[in-house]
Order: sequence, then C-alpha cells, then structure tokens
Amino acid sequence: MMVDTDRFLADLHALRRFGAFRTGVHRPTFSEVDMEARRWFVGRLREEGLEAGIDGVGNILGRGRGEGPRLLAGSHLESQNEAGWLDGALGCVAALHLAASGLPVDVAVFADEEGHYGSFIGSRSFTGLLEEAEIDRLANRYHGKPLRDALREAGLEGEPRFQVERDRYRAFLEMHIEQGRQLEGQGLGIGVVTGIVAIWQWRIVIEGAQNHAGTTTMAERRDAGLAAVRLLAAIDEEFPRHCGERTVWTTGRIALTPGAPSIIPGRAEVLFQYRDVDVDVLRRLEAVLRRLVAESNRRERTVATLEAMSLSTPAVSDPALQEALAGAAEALAPGRWQRMPSGAGHDAQYLARVMPAAMLFVPSIGGVSHHWTEDTADEDLALGMRVLAEGARRVLAD
Amino acid sequence: MMVDTDRFLADLHALRRFGAFRTGVHRPTFSEVDMEARRWFVGRLREEGLEAGIDGVGNILGRGRGEGPRLLAGSHLESQNEAGWLDGALGCVAALHLAASGLPVDVAVFADEEGHYGSFIGSRSFTGLLEEAEIDRLANRYHGKPLRDALREAGLEGEPRFQVERDRYRAFLEMHIEQGRQLEGQGLGIGVVTGIVAIWQWRIVIEGAQNHAGTTTMAERRDAGLAAVRLLAAIDEEFPRHCGERTVWTTGRIALTPGAPSIIPGRAEVLFQYRDVDVDVLRRLEAVLRRLVAESNRRERTVATLEAMSLSTPAVSDPALQEALAGAAEALAPGRWQRMPSGAGHDAQYLARVMPAAMLFVPSIGGVSHHWTEDTADEDLALGMRVLAEGARRVLAD
Repeated sequence: MMVDTDRFLADLHALRRFGAFRTGVHRPTFSEVDMEARRWFVGRLREEGLEAGIDGVGNILGRGRGEGPRLLAGSHLESQNEAGWLDGALGCVAALHLAASGLPVDVAVFADEEGHYGSFIGSRSFTGLLEEAEIDRLANRYHGKPLRDALREAGLEGEPRFQVERDRYRAFLEMHIEQGRQLEGQGLGIGVVTGIVAIWQWRIVIEGAQNHAGTTTMAERRDAGLAAVRLLAAIDEEFPRHCGERTVWTTGRIALTPGAPSIIPGRAEVLFQYRDVDVDVLRRLEAVLRRLVAESNRRERTVATLEAMSLSTPAVSDPALQEALAGAAEALAPGRWQRMPSGAGHDAQYLARVMPAAMLFVPSIGGVSHHWTEDTADEDLALGMRVLAEGARRVLAD
Repeated sequence: MMVDTDRFLADLHALRRFGAFRTGVHRPTFSEVDMEARRWFVGRLREEGLEAGIDGVGNILGRGRGEGPRLLAGSHLESQNEAGWLDGALGCVAALHLAASGLPVDVAVFADEEGHYGSFIGSRSFTGLLEEAEIDRLANRYHGKPLRDALREAGLEGEPRFQVERDRYRAFLEMHIEQGRQLEGQGLGIGVVTGIVAIWQWRIVIEGAQNHAGTTTMAERRDAGLAAVRLLAAIDEEFPRHCGERTVWTTGRIALTPGAPSIIPGRAEVLFQYRDVDVDVLRRLEAVLRRLVAESNRRERTVATLEAMSLSTPAVSDPALQEALAGAAEALAPGRWQRMPSGAGHDAQYLARVMPAAMLFVPSIGGVSHHWTEDTADEDLALGMRVLAEGARRVLAD
C-alpha cells in the first residue's frame, strides 16, 4: 500500500491544463473550463474504482467500497481569477491518490471555496449549513450572474445535494499550500496545522460634516477622514500590546466621502479585520477596538460607530489527528516540519463541525498565493503526499 | 447716484428662477437653464443701457458709454450641481446695479468658474491665459461631454472671445458670499478681502506589497495603507507647529488598492492640500511635508513619493482698493466689518494679474456653500450692495 508520487504529480500537471493561464490557471467556479476539470476529476475517481458524481451545487463525492474505518479527504478545484495551479487542486489530487494507494478514503471536492458566488457554499452545503434560499439569492461577485443560472448552464439544476454521512468517516484531512512564507523562510517542508484562524471583520463608519476645504477653519472642522486616520493610528499603537503571537490585523479599505481634493470628508468608512486561532485573543482585541472607538468619540467632533460584519469561530484541528500527522512528518522529514496555524480559511473549517478534521501544509515559493506565479517545488509536493498518506495510515490504524 | 437695493434684490430673486432646485439652483455651465440665465442677464444689461453680448467661451461683457475713469465688476452665473442661489450670481447682479446706479462700471460674467469643464476658463480666457488647444481638450467632469460640443450646442461656436482692455479700467471689483462662518460667528456684515489664498495640492503615492491578510505576518508586511495612516498622523501632529494663523490643510481622498477586506493594500494614493495667502508659509509647509515623507521612507518598508499637482500663487488684493472698500464699510457699517482672506478661489485672482483687484464678502448663513441650503439675509445682501457702490465711488473719485 504505497502512494505513487509520480502518478500524483502527473495528475496535478494534467489538471493544470484546464484553464491554463501563464504558469497558473484561470478557472472560475462553474466556468466552462471549471466544469471540464470537474468532469475530468470524476473520470479519474471512477478509474480508481470509486463511485463518483457531481451534485446540485457542484460538489464532487467519490465513494470507495469496503467495510471498516474510513476517512474523507479533499479540497476545491476552482481557482481565483488568474491564480495558482495548486491551491485547492493539490488537496483534491492528494485525496484521489490516498484512495488510489488503496487506503479506505472517500474523496470530496467542495464547490466555490474561492467565493466567486458565495462563502464556502460547497462545504456548507455538504455539512448541512446552506439553505436553498441562500442559493436563490447568490450571484457572481465579478459579473453578477445569479448562482441559479450558473448551475442551470452547468447542467446541475435539480440534482440532489450530497449530505455528509457522519457515521461513515473517522476524520477529514485536507492538504493545501501554505499561502505564506513561514515554511520556506525556515527551510521546512511540512506544516501540521493547529487550527484555522477566525476572522473578525468590522466596518467602522465615522460621520462628520462635509465642508469647503478653503473656507472652513481648522477649529470649525468635523473632518471624518482625519478622525479615521487618528483612530487607525491609535489601533496601530495599541494592538501590539494586546495581540497574540500570531495575530494579524489589516485595514483593507478607507473610503472618504465625497473623496474630492477640496472638500472636507463628511464620512469615512473603514474595513478593519483581525485574525487569531484563540477566541480569548479575539475577544481581548474587540475590547481594545471598542475602547479606541469610544476614545475617538470623546476626543473628536465626529461620531464613530463599529459594526461587526462577521465574527467567525476558529476551527481547531483535532489533537489526535495532529499527532498522527506530526508523527508521519517526523518519520518522513525529521526536523523539517513545524506546527502552525492557518491564516486563511479552508473547507476543513466546516468539516471540523461534523467530524475530527486536520490539515497539512506544503511550502509556497516566495509565499505567493492567489496569483498565477504561485508554485511549490515538486519534491515538496511529493513529500507532502507521502506524509499525508502515512498520517492517514496512522489515523486508520488507531 | 444712489444704488436701488430693492431692484437689486428683485433681480437676484428673478435670476433664482433659472434652474430653481429646492431653495437653491441647479444651473450647470452651458446647460439649457444656464444659457437662459445668461440671455436674461444680457437683456438686463441692455435695459440698463450697456452694450452687451456673449462670447465664444460663454463670457458676458456689458460695456457702458462715456469717457473717464471706469471700473470692471462681476463674477459668474452658473452654479455647482444642486447648489446655492447666490454664490457667483450675487457678484454679477451687484455689478449690474453698480452700472444701473449710474457709476461708470462695465459688467463681466466669467464662464464656468465652478469648473464643470475646466479651471476658471472664463476669467482665464478674458485675461489671455486660455489657449484654443485647452478648449479642444476639455470635457465635462460629470458627464464627459467635450467643451467644444457644449459650446456648439449653446450656439457659441465660432464667436470671438472677449479680451480685457487693460487701459479701459482702473480696477476690478467682485462681491461674493463668504462661504464660511467667520463673519456670522462674529456678528459682522462685511468682509474686506485681503487676498485669495493659494492652494498647494499634492498627490502622495505609497507603494508597498499587496498580500494575503491572513497568511502574511505583521513583520513581513509592506502595508501601503498603514504607511499612509502613519504619514497622515505625523502631518496632523506637525503642521500646527509650522502653519500660519489662517492656514488650512485637508486630506480629501485616501484610496487603497485593491481595497478588499482580506488583502493587504499594495498601494495607497492620498490627495493632500494646504492653503494660505502667505508664500513663506506655503514654502515652510512644503519643507515640513517633504521631511515627513522622507522620514516615512526611512521608517517604513514602503516607498512614498510626493507629486505637486498644482502650486498656485496667492492673489493679494490691491491695498488702495482695500482702503476704499474698508472706508466704505466703516462709513456704512461702523464696527461691523473686518479684513479677511478668501479661502476659496475666485475669478478676481485672474483679474488681479492684469489690473488692481479687490473683493467684498457678505455673510453665509451657517457658513453653508455649494449646497442648495446656502443663503444670506436680505439686509446683509443690501448692505453689501451699498458698501460695494460706496467703495466703487471712492475708487473712481481718487
């Protein structure tokens, strides 16, 4: 029962041809090339002896035969626009080759992890967290096509949606590129994921008074943009005193209204988020943020309000699964692996709600992700495949 | 030779009907209502005995008969979108009533001071500072119509452009609403303008590295948005130590690229300006700004560059004209006037290049400007008209 890493790499490169864009791929969810890739993948599952199909939301499930303890493994097949060839494809092909090696593993491909239409609609559908009403409502975020239309054009309309059989599986495993440069920076080959960080995303709105930039004295102003700058500078100063070791925080957008050179902004809207695996850290930072907003409202002649856009829950990897993967990593790459959190979201975070779940990372060259230059060395891909297979074997042997 | 303030107010209210919008007007340059207003104004000039017409760029000139010393007075007729009824209309109707009162005054209406198509195209054309090539190039900033098309549709194509006869005039006078709340706040009725501030407008571009907001550690980041926030916070701290008494500075726009919640901004673009009547102050603040940008580039892992978008020259009011207007104000409103700079730009700044020029301000209720709620009390309008007429009489008598 040995995994064939040459065939694994050959399948990865075969998949790369669907929507090839420079050295990456352009394979948006439910585009023609994405559906071709899905059908090709179903064909490969069947060649390996699995019973496979595509469901009403684009998910693929490949079921193996036989009794006894069984795992589920997988990831997603579509890509961001003009993005990397590995990303989710890696975890799908790795799952295929777990099954191909003879391990009792079912293979799942979750649709639209990349969010062209919604937020994790594939893994949420599979775990019972996606209502029909949400499918009715969703549309493509780039070109606006309703999800229902896309599903009909893809020939998926009316198909039932696969639902997870919890009792069938001992655990879920997902292999993925790191999407950062922690592994590469330390010369490591494998990351055993301790958990997937939660993202707490906030909208900060500051209301001031729009006015003429020439005739309004500094003392008279109620400048919403300036109040935003002062608040963000205070966050920059305070957060390092309260954050965790791996916390990250980001201001992705600052929009001033009306945004003209000679008009004092009457309104500022800021998108601000932080991420951590530890709920205590997330709560502590929320308290700091609320205090800084309150201080702004005492100090400034503007009114700042804080709105939680989404406060997700960290998905902690199952400790026994982590141990199995860590043991496999130490056996196959002694001293060349570490435990680390995932700073990005993955389908595994939804699977973790219904069964033990864990993830394995391989290095990203230069930390590049969501760009066509994304890449990982073949030997790192092969090592990841072997560690995943050995980890799966250990989980099943427990 | 007395100015009739009742007729002056009646004409102001008559003009208010062209493009009436709530209590203000919507009279964009070369719109149908704007052209109707211009033709109505030419008619009024002719009724008062002036020889009047509209030129190839929309300017109106009303010329009186007779020998001897003569003044030019005026302002602009179009409005910002959904803006106030007075603004430029006030100075035009005031100029009309200087002539109507029998004073040797020519009346000028300068097209598009509000910048729907360009920057002061009317007063720049009149003073010889507008090339045909610029007219070819300009288009409406809101709907993109080329200026040439707008001029043709307005029936002005091919008309010659009026050029100022410098020897004909002793001085230029412009009456305008203050557009701020300095006069109202101090209970004053008249502002004698000492000069029009210069605007030094800068574009600050910060280049960092766009990256994933979850997988990139704080230490690895080159966050252009954060560098912009720190630079703007430093400006907020430093400028009060170096500015003049009436300096104002404004950040009107902050644009982060790509502007998504989960992506570290790779680029920030900031529009920043300051205004003062004193060139020494403007130069001192430029030195402070350049120092802060250099400090940012030493401190941050991003690269900030500073680009001067426009560095205008302050237009100082002619001292003798200021004296004449100040004498008139003290005679008609003893203790209820002050000298003050204009924080906004006006046609007078271009006229000041070819002849002595000065301006008179009346209060703006609540400081409101460029909004349909803009207003001034009738008694303040009438007082302004009387002071302007008495000032004109004194200038001509010198």
